[in-house]
Amino acid sequence: MNIEQWDEHIAIKNAMDDLIHSLDVSAQMKEMVLHVCASGGKMVRPIILMLSTQLCGGRFEDSIDASLAIELIHSASLIQDDVLDEGILRRGMPSTHRMFGYSSAILCGDFLISKAIELISSYDRRSVRDFGRAGMHMSEGEIMDIMSINEDFGMDEYMECIRKKTASLFAASASIGAYVGGADEKTAEVCRSFGYNVGTAYQMVDDILEYVQIIQSKESENISLSLPSIYQRRMSPERAISRSVGLVEEYVSSARSEIAYFKSSQVTDKLLEITDYITLDMLTPDILQK
Amino acid sequence: MNIEQWDEHIAIKNAMDDLIHSLDVSAQMKEMVLHVCASGGKMVRPIILMLSTQLCGGRFEDSIDASLAIELIHSASLIQDDVLDEGILRRGMPSTHRMFGYSSAILCGDFLISKAIELISSYDRRSVRDFGRAGMHMSEGEIMDIMSINEDFGMDEYMECIRKKTASLFAASASIGAYVGGADEKTAEVCRSFGYNVGTAYQMVDDILEYVQIIQSKESENISLSLPSIYQRRMSPERAISRSVGLVEEYVSSARSEIAYFKSSQVTDKLLEITDYITLDMLTPDILQK
Repeated sequence: MNIEQWDEHIAIKNAMDDLIHSLDVSAQMKEMVLHVCASGGKMVRPIILMLSTQLCGGRFEDSIDASLAIELIHSASLIQDDVLDEGILRRGMPSTHRMFGYSSAILCGDFLISKAIELISSYDRRSVRDFGRAGMHMSEGEIMDIMSINEDFGMDEYMECIRKKTASLFAASASIGAYVGGADEKTAEVCRSFGYNVGTAYQMVDDILEYVQIIQSKESENISLSLPSIYQRRMSPERAISRSVGLVEEYVSSARSEIAYFKSSQVTDKLLEITDYITLDMLTPDILQK
Repeated sequence: MNIEQWDEHIAIKNAMDDLIHSLDVSAQMKEMVLHVCASGGKMVRPIILMLSTQLCGGRFEDSIDASLAIELIHSASLIQDDVLDEGILRRGMPSTHRMFGYSSAILCGDFLISKAIELISSYDRRSVRDFGRAGMHMSEGEIMDIMSINEDFGMDEYMECIRKKTASLFAASASIGAYVGGADEKTAEVCRSFGYNVGTAYQMVDDILEYVQIIQSKESENISLSLPSIYQRRMSPERAISRSVGLVEEYVSSARSEIAYFKSSQVTDKLLEITDYITLDMLTPDILQK
């Protein structure tokens, strides 16, 4: 089934449109927010948040604002990634700083983070706390990522880097969703672990796809530090890829076990589906084979 | 009396030291945070927050974390101002991006904002909301500031710009302090207005001092857009300065009226003192006279 037709996806898309159009800001700020937030992201994190709410007995309608907050933080991080990496295109469109300038792009990121704080403020303390911690981890992970080029970066450092840089926001999506659904600490922790595992697998897949592209284009000198490039230090690129895929499967398997903690339902089915959708489904044979 | 000897100042300085030293982050991140947060800021905003708490019947010890959160946001904004303005020095030290690079400086700002969210998460919803709104206004105000060079920027635009860019964080400091002290909405609104007025006067003073320096050094072509430079469009620099000082006095007077809403006490005395300290006390005759 097409995720874009899920109730959760439709709800968050509509809520995002409403949010942007109701913003009482300058024309330029609105244009930037529209550019960043309405340019066709998959809304994976907010959907995971809403599903986690339902998993823990709540209604997804109650977690819309928290889901928007998570998506805004994600959008802010994309703006900044592009500024830091000098990214030119994002989702097929010019990146925010290419269209509006560096200063405005950075300030738009701040605005989105601040709007996200306002949105999350109506939730309980644990949700706000997890939200802040995810932001801390994301910035720490990004710094590790930048440092990875200069320093001795092995498997342990790689795992810590992607856990912080990428998985932490998935983890916060799941735990905040759980809290909104009324979960106790133990249940929220299962959701958080699910988020960490699916987020880790997601980043690994992203790294694998980038690595395959680089190998295929023979631009071997530009290989940035990633899971396959760490494996490749002691094996062939082909084996490094298959070894990486094997590790993705392990993390996906852990994510599935956490979903299995809950009674099987339409919600658990959706969580399983979205888990595959953003991980193993991306690794089609024609992509992996040269 | 020396503000650095106030209990509130000592408490926030100690709390900031404890916070930095207990951070579980990489050595580089800790070094950056130390560089930014322990480089001798006056801690005016956290002190206003703590005094507002006491004004409304609370203990300042209960508002330490909120005060830290405000100071971290302020520190993050300084890092970013320097990145956006290409600032070289800050408080007599090299700016963060000059010491650690642009990417790390920007990410350190993100970390501080996120740590601030974690700190504010233990407070009530209204505090978290005001905290987020201040961030939104700050980024909107900064964008207005950048645009001011190109656009038709008059008195109305200037006032909106500094209210958002600078005064909003003073306003949030005062209103959050009030909420922590148990204030009702009406009382919190008086504190918020006090913050807006003192923050507006503070920014005007900053602009006047910069203008005087530029006039004295005869670098007339570099006059950036500010209160005196707007007045100067239709009067002499001398009259523009005295007219600007007159407006500062009006805002200080409004701030004092809001303090007068509360029964006179040692706390109101301190608020009156800090109000003058960051506004009129800066405008000594020898600075204003060429």
